[in-house]
This record gives sequence, C-alpha cells and structure tokens, in this order.
Amino acid sequence: MNIEISRLSNGLTIVTDPMAQLESAALGIYVNAGTRNEVKRVMGVSHMLEHMAFKGTERRTARDIAEEIEAVGGFLNAYTSREQTAFHARVLKGDVALAVDILADILTSPTFDQTELERERQVVLQEIGQARDTPDDIVFDYLQSTIYPDQPMGWPILGDDDTVSGFTQSDLRDYMGANYRAQGMLLVASGAVDHASIVRLAEEKLGRLRGGAIPQPLPARWGGGDMRKDDDLEQAHLTFAFPGLKQTDPDFYALQVYTTALGGGMSSRLFQEVREKRGLCYTISAFAQSASDSGIVAIYTGTGAAEAGQIAPVVAGEMEALATAPSEAEIGRAKAQLKSGLLMALEKPSNRAEQIAGQMFSYGRVLSPEELTARLEEVDASAVRRIGETLMRSERPAMTSLGPVGALESYDTFARRFGGAVSMRAAE
Amino acid sequence: MNIEISRLSNGLTIVTDPMAQLESAALGIYVNAGTRNEVKRVMGVSHMLEHMAFKGTERRTARDIAEEIEAVGGFLNAYTSREQTAFHARVLKGDVALAVDILADILTSPTFDQTELERERQVVLQEIGQARDTPDDIVFDYLQSTIYPDQPMGWPILGDDDTVSGFTQSDLRDYMGANYRAQGMLLVASGAVDHASIVRLAEEKLGRLRGGAIPQPLPARWGGGDMRKDDDLEQAHLTFAFPGLKQTDPDFYALQVYTTALGGGMSSRLFQEVREKRGLCYTISAFAQSASDSGIVAIYTGTGAAEAGQIAPVVAGEMEALATAPSEAEIGRAKAQLKSGLLMALEKPSNRAEQIAGQMFSYGRVLSPEELTARLEEVDASAVRRIGETLMRSERPAMTSLGPVGALESYDTFARRFGGAVSMRAAE
Repeated sequence: MNIEISRLSNGLTIVTDPMAQLESAALGIYVNAGTRNEVKRVMGVSHMLEHMAFKGTERRTARDIAEEIEAVGGFLNAYTSREQTAFHARVLKGDVALAVDILADILTSPTFDQTELERERQVVLQEIGQARDTPDDIVFDYLQSTIYPDQPMGWPILGDDDTVSGFTQSDLRDYMGANYRAQGMLLVASGAVDHASIVRLAEEKLGRLRGGAIPQPLPARWGGGDMRKDDDLEQAHLTFAFPGLKQTDPDFYALQVYTTALGGGMSSRLFQEVREKRGLCYTISAFAQSASDSGIVAIYTGTGAAEAGQIAPVVAGEMEALATAPSEAEIGRAKAQLKSGLLMALEKPSNRAEQIAGQMFSYGRVLSPEELTARLEEVDASAVRRIGETLMRSERPAMTSLGPVGALESYDTFARRFGGAVSMRAAE
Repeated sequence: MNIEISRLSNGLTIVTDPMAQLESAALGIYVNAGTRNEVKRVMGVSHMLEHMAFKGTERRTARDIAEEIEAVGGFLNAYTSREQTAFHARVLKGDVALAVDILADILTSPTFDQTELERERQVVLQEIGQARDTPDDIVFDYLQSTIYPDQPMGWPILGDDDTVSGFTQSDLRDYMGANYRAQGMLLVASGAVDHASIVRLAEEKLGRLRGGAIPQPLPARWGGGDMRKDDDLEQAHLTFAFPGLKQTDPDFYALQVYTTALGGGMSSRLFQEVREKRGLCYTISAFAQSASDSGIVAIYTGTGAAEAGQIAPVVAGEMEALATAPSEAEIGRAKAQLKSGLLMALEKPSNRAEQIAGQMFSYGRVLSPEELTARLEEVDASAVRRIGETLMRSERPAMTSLGPVGALESYDTFARRFGGAVSMRAAE
C-alpha cells in the first residue's frame, strides 16, 4: 500500500490509496457521526440526513445528482451506522474529479427542500416497512435495544414512524451543523487516484467546511436481558450476545480469532455442531462488532419451532468448550481465514476505502497489511482462552428472539449457563 | 484479458484467466444442469446434490472438506440456478492446487452417505423455512411458477417439504449420473493462476469424469397470468413481468439498456417516478433475466397497503413512454452504467470466473471486454424503442403479489394496458 495523508486547514483529513493497474476508483466522504449522536426527539435524523443529502443542493436538483453521476457510469451510495455516516462513489478513473465535486456539493450545500423532505419522509417510512418484513433485521434491532436500553446506542438507525413523520428542515440543519465538522470528516480515495489532485480538489470543494469542536456521544452502557416476541413466522430467529471489546482494545484481534473459531465459517464449532451434526438450522454465525468505546459478541441463527429449544444449550456448551480447550488446529484455521480475508479485501478498492476510514477513525492512522497480519499472527491459544473465559463470566448476556419461540429456554436458564446474576426484563 | 482454453479428452473444458498482480484466485467448476433438468418427483434434487457434494467423499469426511479449505484461509461455496450448478473456491495463490483437488473430489467421488443425507435434509428444510420468512424471495417463486406453469423452469430451486423429505441416495446418484458429464462441465480459474498447471491438475483430478450425451431440458413455455396472496405483512411485494430474450439474442444488449433505463439506477424512469417523485417505495427495480432459450423482463417493488394501487399504472405508463420516446440522454446513461459496471466487474476474480462460465455456456467462447463494449455501443434509440414496443404488445404478462394487496388493480386491468388477450388464472 502506498498511503498518503494530508490535512486541510479546517481539519478535514484526506487519505489516498493508489492501486496500480486499476481503471476505476472508490471514493468516500466519511463522517464521524451517526445514530449515537442523536437526541431522542430526532431519533433517525442521521439516516434522514443521509437520504436528504441526495435531494438537491444550491447547484443541483435531486435529479441532476442522479443523472450526472450515472451519465458517466458512476455509482453513488450512502449508509448510516451507529457511529458513522458514509457517502461514497465508484467511478472510472477519468471521473474522479466529478465524484469529488458531487460528494462535496451534497455535503456542503444541501438545500433540504421542504417538498423533497415530505416525499423522502414517505420513502423512509417505506424503508421502515421493508425492515419490518425482514425478521433477521428486526431481531437485531431488538438486540441493540436490549443491550443498550434507553440510550442512542440502542436506537434503530432508521428511527421510527413517529420521529420520521416529525422531522423538520431545522432538525436536519441543526444536526448537520453540530456534527458535520471538518475535524470529524475524512475523504478517502482508493484505486486509480493521485494524491496531489485529490488534495487540490478537496481544498477547492471542501475547504469551506466548518471546523470547530465535535460533540462526543455518551458512553455506551450495557443493559442486557431478554426480549422475545412470539410471532407467526416460519422460523424462530434467535440472537445471543455478550459484552465484547472496543475497536482499539489490544485483544481485538484475539476476539476476531475467537468468533471465527466459534462461528465464522464451515469448520467453526457452531456450524459443525448446530448445522452439520444436528441439522438444526441453515444459517448460524458468530461475530464481534466493535465501536469506539464498546463492543458486542453475538450469535445469530434461524431455526424451526421444534428446534428452537435445542440451540441455546449447544451455543453455551460450545462457548465453554472453546474457553476451556481451544485446539491449535482451530486457532490456525481461524487465523488463516482472517488473514486471507484481509488480503482478498485488499484487491477491491471499495473495501480498501472503507477499511481505511474505519482505521483512521479508530487509530488515527492506517494499519498496513503487514501490521494487521502480524497482530493476527500473535494471537495464540492462551489469548483465545482468556477471551473465552471472560465471555463465560458475562453477568448479563442479551438474548432476543422473534417467531415461534415457545420452546426457547428462559432467560434465567440461559444466563445461569454464564454464571452471572440474573433478573428478568419484561418482553416487548 | 489473457484467456486460454483447453479441452480434456472426456470433453471437460478448462478456461484460465490470469490477472497479474493478484495474490489470490477464484476457481469454479460449473455444471450445465440445474432445476430445469429435474423431473417432478425429485424437484429440488439439483440443489440437494449441491449440498450433499460437501458431505463427504471416498477420501474426505464432510468435516475434512471444511477444515482443509479453511486451514489455508480458503472459502468454498456453491449455488444452484435453474440451468446451472456451480461449486467455487477462493484461495491464495499457493493453494490453487488444493482448491482444484477438493472441487474435483467432491464432484467425482461423493459418497452421499445415508446419515449425512438425513441430516442435510433437515438443513434444507430449514433453508426452505428461511425463504418463507423472506417475502421478496417468495414473490419471485410465485413469479417463476406463474410465468412457467407446470414445468421444471417454474419450480422452486429448493424443492418443497415433500420432495426434500423423500430424496434417496439413488435419486442423487441417478441425477448426477445423467447430468454431471464432462461435456457439460467447465473448470474456470481467474486471478493468480497459470494455464499449464491448471490443465495438468484437471487431467489428473477430472480426467475420469464420464463423457457422453447430456439430456437437454424441455423448452420453456410462457404461461403468464396472476398470482396474488393477501397476507398480514407490512409491505405489498409486487412483481410484473413480460417475455424477454434468450442469452444469445442479437437484441440482448439492447434489452439490457432498456431495463437499465427503465429501472436500473437512481436516474432510471421507475426510480425517479415511483420513488423520487411520488415517494411510493424504498426499493424498485427492473431487470432482464435470460436463459438459454427464453428470458423475462421483470419489475419488483415493495410498497405500503395504501400505495399498492398506484404502482401498476405508473409502471405501465413509464414502459409506454420509454417505448414511444426514449431520450438520447437516458440511453447514454444506461450504456455508461452498463459499460462501467462491466469494467469494474473485471477487477474482481470471482466476478470474472462467473462471467466467463456464463459466456462459455451461452456462446461457447469468452467475449472480450472490447467486444462487449462494442455491442453496448451499437445500441441506439431505435433498438430500445423496438424492445419497448414488443414489450407493450405482451399478450399475457405475469403479475404476482404478496402482502396487503387489496388495492392492487385486477389482472385484466393490468393486462389490458399491454393490449393482450386476457383471461384470469386462479390465485393460489
């Protein structure tokens, strides 16, 4: 990698990552603010703003934005997460300047036109409806609110029907004014790009972004407990979760190895035990999700009504076995999978831009593939065991479910498998 | 591209597509048989075979297969479509030989062990359950069976609870014996690969695959009509479809331009009219799906109960407008999007292997990016108009829906917009 980093006087950071031989580029403006930066009255405003940025600027109508990028065969998209909002483009190399111009335009001069706002509100309400028809989305919304009760970290990214119906132009402007500050923003470009040109473009197009202090979100507070909804679905959608690690934790890579060995691939313990040996599900996976100050380790599966009672004990049993006696072979496989995943991701410019943005926000620098590989290499059985033992002592795991969940064991029974203090929380 | 093609004496075709600078490779064995090659009693057997190939060979248990590939950080996967079944791997360059060995092993020496079959049957039943909780999967199963009634082309790829419960070892062996013949199979390798080594490996590992004639599926017969299911979902999931073109039709690229202009991106007619102007949905798209002897043009959207009545007339109206007066600008944008999509896809080895396999099955050769670009360039307004006019004369479009669909117009009303003869078909 041939990373170059520059900073504009307003604080905006520019990272370029040229890839020889490529005919295209991936560019993104990444904003260090998302759902966590909201107050309750405007829950979902980060996501609404992400939509409204595309709905017209001082120089371009919504239709102009769509037509200009697609006229050169480019793709423009965006997403909102709990801590970040990203606006990104894929273009052929001759169109990099246009991509920067459009991305900068929608983030510096959006008009938040009232008529467009009314229409886009309907679109987001439809998006919420679509999520409601996706049980493996809902069960994760349950999980987030069970883990982080009564705090922005636990809110649904889309907001809800009430808040979305109420957004005003000022809500968007206030949120943007407070959170879209140059110090908390990155322009990242991977692929057929050149540092000097990107910096020149950024100076011209993003130099007037406001600097100043960025409000910090409140620390995440783990709640945990149970949320189950008995519903007329085909499958019982289940999650189990435990406190994990923040992104910069020294054990971050050991945790990745742990979750990969637990439920990251075909040879993982959960896949082998739950799907291959018992035939209880089609999908089961474990993963670690890390934020700036906190993290979770979660397991998801979808299973039948009759099978729903059998999953939780197996999950707890495999977690215990992995905490007690991780094998050298399974740790080797997990490390090999993570390493090759990392190397293969380097072949795609959009993955690289994404990864660079994440590292810049977490570490303030870009970690080289060699450094990442070395960190992975260091992980050994004792580190995995240490992670596993800590998880087995989780005092208040979280457990959410949706569908025919009658056979699922009680929260008390499940939590006791992890030796923590237990008290029931009302189901939705 | 630097394609090399060889053929073994049994008829197996080997295509290599080396990509300089890559540290990894994508390999696949593609079989020219899928759901269409089934008889009704064993509906879903192609997909069951795809699963069972991973469940043990003469040399490897199911667990060995998973562990061996993941020990080197590789990924193994497979999928079944109506005309093909693919088994593919992603590995670092040093592990290409292992990938070929495993892929060849699971396709030449699977044991279809009875105990594994009983377990995997349960997994596939869970997979069917998961699909039933995914309304935008189901509504496409409805579409396929409405377009192609009472024929293999219209069957669900997964089969149903009955057929999956009944599969025997002989069903798998019979199907494999008839359809997995060297003449109908391709080994494609893109990325860090070398032709001579791949051919040598193929000779050693796949040389004993049986040759001989491959049964041809029956021609697809368009039925069309209406299938709607009023259900307690949040959104009405709607599809509309029209007879399209087979893969080798000279107008194939004109049709791609047409569907892209109709509903392929943010600047497309349907996105602008249905989502941006009216706020009726979050997702709407149009696409062409082409098979060896037939094809469909389809539109999908998810919308609210109240909005469900407004979509069909807008879809028909935009199709008519595009058939009557396609603008040079929209045609230019669609061509630019398709061209850049094509160039960007070339940057990823798994996309390339996939695309090469498709072209080999359709055309018996690999189309160069220059040829593809030239075919796209040739498309002009008159070709798009011709496509549009033909679609407007569709005699028996298909229309399927699931969810709160009470407001959706009748099939007769919809079909009359396309000027065809009309008769109602019973809803499910």
